[in-house]
Amino acid sequence: MTNQTNTERQVILTGDRATGPLHLGHYVGSLKQRVSLQDEHDQTILVADMQGLTDNAHNPSKVSSSILNVVADYLAVGIDPRKTTVCLQSQLPALAELTMYYSNVVTVTRLERNPTVKSEIKSKGFERSLPAGFLTYPISQAADITAFNATLVPVGDDQLPMIEQTNEIVRKINSLAGKPVLKECKPLLSNASRLPSTDGKNKMSKSMGNTINLGATEKEISTAVRSMYTDPDHLKVEDPGKVEGNVVFTYLDAFHPDIKYVSQLKKHYQRGGLGDGTTKKILEECLQEVLKPIRERREKYLKDKAQLIDILRAGSEISREKTNDILLRVKSVFGLNLF
Amino acid sequence: MTNQTNTERQVILTGDRATGPLHLGHYVGSLKQRVSLQDEHDQTILVADMQGLTDNAHNPSKVSSSILNVVADYLAVGIDPRKTTVCLQSQLPALAELTMYYSNVVTVTRLERNPTVKSEIKSKGFERSLPAGFLTYPISQAADITAFNATLVPVGDDQLPMIEQTNEIVRKINSLAGKPVLKECKPLLSNASRLPSTDGKNKMSKSMGNTINLGATEKEISTAVRSMYTDPDHLKVEDPGKVEGNVVFTYLDAFHPDIKYVSQLKKHYQRGGLGDGTTKKILEECLQEVLKPIRERREKYLKDKAQLIDILRAGSEISREKTNDILLRVKSVFGLNLF
Repeated sequence: MTNQTNTERQVILTGDRATGPLHLGHYVGSLKQRVSLQDEHDQTILVADMQGLTDNAHNPSKVSSSILNVVADYLAVGIDPRKTTVCLQSQLPALAELTMYYSNVVTVTRLERNPTVKSEIKSKGFERSLPAGFLTYPISQAADITAFNATLVPVGDDQLPMIEQTNEIVRKINSLAGKPVLKECKPLLSNASRLPSTDGKNKMSKSMGNTINLGATEKEISTAVRSMYTDPDHLKVEDPGKVEGNVVFTYLDAFHPDIKYVSQLKKHYQRGGLGDGTTKKILEECLQEVLKPIRERREKYLKDKAQLIDILRAGSEISREKTNDILLRVKSVFGLNLF
Repeated sequence: MTNQTNTERQVILTGDRATGPLHLGHYVGSLKQRVSLQDEHDQTILVADMQGLTDNAHNPSKVSSSILNVVADYLAVGIDPRKTTVCLQSQLPALAELTMYYSNVVTVTRLERNPTVKSEIKSKGFERSLPAGFLTYPISQAADITAFNATLVPVGDDQLPMIEQTNEIVRKINSLAGKPVLKECKPLLSNASRLPSTDGKNKMSKSMGNTINLGATEKEISTAVRSMYTDPDHLKVEDPGKVEGNVVFTYLDAFHPDIKYVSQLKKHYQRGGLGDGTTKKILEECLQEVLKPIRERREKYLKDKAQLIDILRAGSEISREKTNDILLRVKSVFGLNLF
């Protein structure tokens, strides 16, 4: 783990499964961080369409229809393709080939022990019908990370086991090679705490209707804020209210530019006399302001799909060279460099 | 299952794991058949180096050092690269990519139920440390078969579950596509019965020293025949002997050109008066005759490794085009044809 990202230029690999539009949770948890990282480091963002299919093969259009939306989301929040390489997983054959080679040095037992996979299997109800590709996706993620020679990987703390699995593979390959062929990577944990869903209960999920997408309309933002979970015991305006677990205040903390003002609001709410209608109105105004320019840029980008495709294509071409180079090195470890 | 291979031209995919030199078991079980199939059909032989690694990652040179030997074995027995495409698995990225896509439509439970994999896991002692790549290799084999649009796959009867698994995947992909994108394949069972190991007990295996390799020297052939398992109760020449389970007679059946003469020998042995020394001498002469030209051609080919590499390279280039074409079709099924 490191927070000293400014000391030397790092190679960063990050990305998103292309399984739906990005939302405020992504904005707070990763997108804002990426926008600042792109100035200091060599950053690649992988649009993970193949990984998206590991639990969506029965409904592949969920993945394919998300790809350009996700790229538009990136550009809209300020990811600059001149600074950050944006590429498409399915355009990089080396990632699949590396996954095959790495699969031979990872046991099934080890995959089944992965805490992230275990909890995801449970939450997706996969116990009886787990697709092989889902069980093995930590290997595919290790392929993604190592194929770019990444040294720094931004993750949530629930993803730390993925970094561990990757570095285990790196050490096995290096040990087979008898020399350092691949680099170990470090996780970069976000300073931001995880943004709760608008209902305060669940993980954000499009199907639960408890997210605010980056492309949300004014009306969608308004509806989402009005239905937000607050303090269920705060029945009358004059009653004292709770700030902890009150999603409106969590969002104000995350998005309102005036920390002092939010702090005053909290005190007022806690001693009573501040209604949820008022706090929601303040939050709505703030979110409308944050999201308006993002939504407008997003729409503009989505009107020119050819440009989005060009950005992905160019990023994928650069990445194809990089990842093929690492693949050749790994194949050499296994003696497969005849021609 | 079909034996009507002559009625129409079929696309055949076959191959060998590159994990050691080919031996008389391969010759009888598959190589002879391939030599005759190449005149009638569109045959590709895949040198499966990546599959060889699924249980040899700790000792990869076993695989890499076998590749050119296997190609020399093919040429020595009469595989003609002008009629049969000989290609190298690790040179065909589409095979790895197809494996990834297919992994999403095959469950872990289904893989664990595969009878071939189950018995191999047991025989290799993998219960506690099964590499992920070994569990999933039926998916990789399905990728190999379908990537060539193969309609006919020569197999031993122990490999029939692999054909079943492949056709299950084909049906799932076609059902997702709503049209026939991939072709189902049929197994082609060899008419030859499986050749026993020289000790009559085990599966042939280089490490058991119970095989006769195609490149065996005169002396190696002689030693192997002399130590062959016969009838353990046939103690004196004048005693009646058993022909069933007597490896010398099984090999005479498989290799001696004069069926009538072998039949007379059997009767003589059964009524007594024919010693094992004599039957072994007859078999040795026969095997020396069969293997001498094969060994000589093999040596000649191995002296010109550049030529062997050229053959593999040319076959792999042709195969890369074919398999990339199928990959594009499968990617389209998942909507991944943006560019």
